[in-house]
Amino acid sequence: MGRFHNLISIHDLTREDIDLILKTAAEMERLTGQWGRLLQGRIMACLFFEPSTRTRLSFESAMLRLGGNVLGFADVSVSSAGGKGETLADTVRTVEQYADVIVIRHPLDGSARVAAEFATVPVINAGSGAEEHPTQALLDLYSIWKLKGRIDGLTISLCGDLKYGRTVHSLGIALSRYDVRIRLASPPTLRMKPTIVQDMEQAGIEVTQTDSLIEAVTDVDVVYMTRIQKERFPDITEYDKIKDKFRITMSEVKRMRDDTIILHPLPRVGEIDPEVDPTPNAKYFEQVYNGVITRMAILRLILE
Amino acid sequence: MGRFHNLISIHDLTREDIDLILKTAAEMERLTGQWGRLLQGRIMACLFFEPSTRTRLSFESAMLRLGGNVLGFADVSVSSAGGKGETLADTVRTVEQYADVIVIRHPLDGSARVAAEFATVPVINAGSGAEEHPTQALLDLYSIWKLKGRIDGLTISLCGDLKYGRTVHSLGIALSRYDVRIRLASPPTLRMKPTIVQDMEQAGIEVTQTDSLIEAVTDVDVVYMTRIQKERFPDITEYDKIKDKFRITMSEVKRMRDDTIILHPLPRVGEIDPEVDPTPNAKYFEQVYNGVITRMAILRLILE
Amino acid sequence: MGRFHNLISIHDLTREDIDLILKTAAEMERLTGQWGRLLQGRIMACLFFEPSTRTRLSFESAMLRLGGNVLGFADVSVSSAGGKGETLADTVRTVEQYADVIVIRHPLDGSARVAAEFATVPVINAGSGAEEHPTQALLDLYSIWKLKGRIDGLTISLCGDLKYGRTVHSLGIALSRYDVRIRLASPPTLRMKPTIVQDMEQAGIEVTQTDSLIEAVTDVDVVYMTRIQKERFPDITEYDKIKDKFRITMSEVKRMRDDTIILHPLPRVGEIDPEVDPTPNAKYFEQVYNGVITRMAILRLILE
Repeated sequence: MGRFHNLISIHDLTREDIDLILKTAAEMERLTGQWGRLLQGRIMACLFFEPSTRTRLSFESAMLRLGGNVLGFADVSVSSAGGKGETLADTVRTVEQYADVIVIRHPLDGSARVAAEFATVPVINAGSGAEEHPTQALLDLYSIWKLKGRIDGLTISLCGDLKYGRTVHSLGIALSRYDVRIRLASPPTLRMKPTIVQDMEQAGIEVTQTDSLIEAVTDVDVVYMTRIQKERFPDITEYDKIKDKFRITMSEVKRMRDDTIILHPLPRVGEIDPEVDPTPNAKYFEQVYNGVITRMAILRLILE
Repeated sequence: MGRFHNLISIHDLTREDIDLILKTAAEMERLTGQWGRLLQGRIMACLFFEPSTRTRLSFESAMLRLGGNVLGFADVSVSSAGGKGETLADTVRTVEQYADVIVIRHPLDGSARVAAEFATVPVINAGSGAEEHPTQALLDLYSIWKLKGRIDGLTISLCGDLKYGRTVHSLGIALSRYDVRIRLASPPTLRMKPTIVQDMEQAGIEVTQTDSLIEAVTDVDVVYMTRIQKERFPDITEYDKIKDKFRITMSEVKRMRDDTIILHPLPRVGEIDPEVDPTPNAKYFEQVYNGVITRMAILRLILE
Repeated sequence: MGRFHNLISIHDLTREDIDLILKTAAEMERLTGQWGRLLQGRIMACLFFEPSTRTRLSFESAMLRLGGNVLGFADVSVSSAGGKGETLADTVRTVEQYADVIVIRHPLDGSARVAAEFATVPVINAGSGAEEHPTQALLDLYSIWKLKGRIDGLTISLCGDLKYGRTVHSLGIALSRYDVRIRLASPPTLRMKPTIVQDMEQAGIEVTQTDSLIEAVTDVDVVYMTRIQKERFPDITEYDKIKDKFRITMSEVKRMRDDTIILHPLPRVGEIDPEVDPTPNAKYFEQVYNGVITRMAILRLILE
């Protein structure tokens, strides 16, 4: 279809781009059982310079379900790219001889864009540095749209570690393409960066900030929970205090509206109590499936 | 066919279940060259929380030969499942969104059953803890049945480390569904657990125990050899003494009947002398191929 | 076609064998877009006892493009072959039950030949020890033949580390099947082994040696550059001196004829300046693609 060549940053996408991806994902879901030949004979290379089983397997499942094939590495330690000091530019110009599309995960900010500059085949960013994870943001939007029937007009809480989580950065930017109200709920030391908040406000979004999880889950359409990582706290007692305050249990679920959905990029450690899993609010495992569907849509838009 | 959803433990299988698997394996072998489309479009996820190249490649070969696809991880160190403290329940509920069947290998007893409790897709146990390795037991049975023409009425020796080897535990239980005589031959410190021996005896099986390998190989239909692991011995001189006594060489083969077959789950280290390999008794590499066939049968029964 | 069963060493190949591989590669390139079914249903096992992402992905891409499937391991640490002390002979006799062809990379000289002796399925050497890397030599020859239209009559410089690089050893032997002139350019401590030089001279090849890179790049058809590894130098200042002398920059390119092509087995570290990449002389990334094509030809010749 030609509109997309690479998918590097959510910043590059207009609302029209995002809507097209969501609609294509919905179409992929309608086509369930008739996927088998769409990308037959095509090869996807997964270059994971940091391990991420979840994202890698989601992309692989998407490509295999479309009839395509997969190669690559899951861990840079088995790659000469790591051991022998090759530049990313050379790795990319080599791997594009083996595949029709490159999916890259890399610990450095900007790495996916560098890859795209040197590649002639399309490049998809599967997470780079602390800033970008565009396909996660798109699958989050698809989950919201599919489960709530719309995005415009919703009130959405982003909760947990908003400072270091690349998921919420990309999602915040993506949401600001829509007419939504956003609540940011985090411990004071893990607030979202002011520049990202400003970006959202300049896009006309109403943003409120709180350090109360109860406030964040009350009377909203979507609660988007993220993990608070122990490593971020120099003082472990500080972590223990916060960890228990930013935890969704049945007590928080009872404060929610019946139609509030709970999302989470996973993996979770303790921030959503497993007793919440059977509630109709819990949608985080369905969200995983939506990830496969969304990545199928992206691969199709890019490769067909 | 609906009879099997999961395959977790040999304890769950009746003789009729096992016979159906063996017959399906024989049918798969007859179909050689016509496998290509049976599981087309289906995806198998391999979750190997401890490495096992042999078992993993055998399952992958089975799935690929049936026209299906494979994804997963070979080593928990490249999996967020390991690093980020996710529970097995969450890993399983995530991965089932990517695949149609989960094959799991895990160091803890009971792990495969936990996985099956949380999964909606079928789960196959590829080795859990010290107790269970049901697909190995089934491929061993298939090898015996195919090579000897029957299982009932046979005399079968299980030799080597009977205490720690999960292979012989599952095989012992599986054999007790049939009318066989079993000889257990091991060093005194590596005897099979009394509870498993009791289970076999209660099933009506005649079980004799010995610490003489010569006795174990004389006038039997099947010699099933296993590896004695150095790590099990606090005293290395003790190991060296035993190691040489539990070793099949041409001298042991000469004591065997012409129609005695030698099986081994592999890998071997020194417990079968390579000079035995060309003898007509040695069937352990053919047994590897039977493993692919048996796993094809299991995948077909579970997925079709 | 039956001419090839294994591909272990360039020493085993006559000029007719090599010509057939080159012609088959050219035919594969003409067939672009019509590869999809040639090796459908066939399985290639990759046994990489030392990591080599580049070679592994090139073989995998070749097999997948031909419609075949791939399994194996990328790193011996996840293989029981490594951890449990199994012999290479046993690993090979096991893996051949899972696959139709074995591609092996191993740190020891002679390992691929040992594998081939024990296997009944074909074995392809993907790099063994310090001596052999036959498929690299064949893809180098195919690149030269395709880009220059012929091999006979050419003047070819092999540059860099000629002592330890297995690539240039195999390539030197392969080139001596043709009527070429060869210049060997290396630091005095990294000269090609006299035995290999003698082999080439006995084959009737004119061989000259120099430690001047400028001399090596002037008035030749092909400059084949290789990496000089820091680890080879006990004295780091010695390395720094040599490193800068054996480096192709625009200044060296300006000394070349317009039709001189630059090849490199990759990865490079600093021995070709990236400013050379856009020149029409630089062919090392196209060479990577030729590698996939050449390996498709080899797989086809061996498996069809």
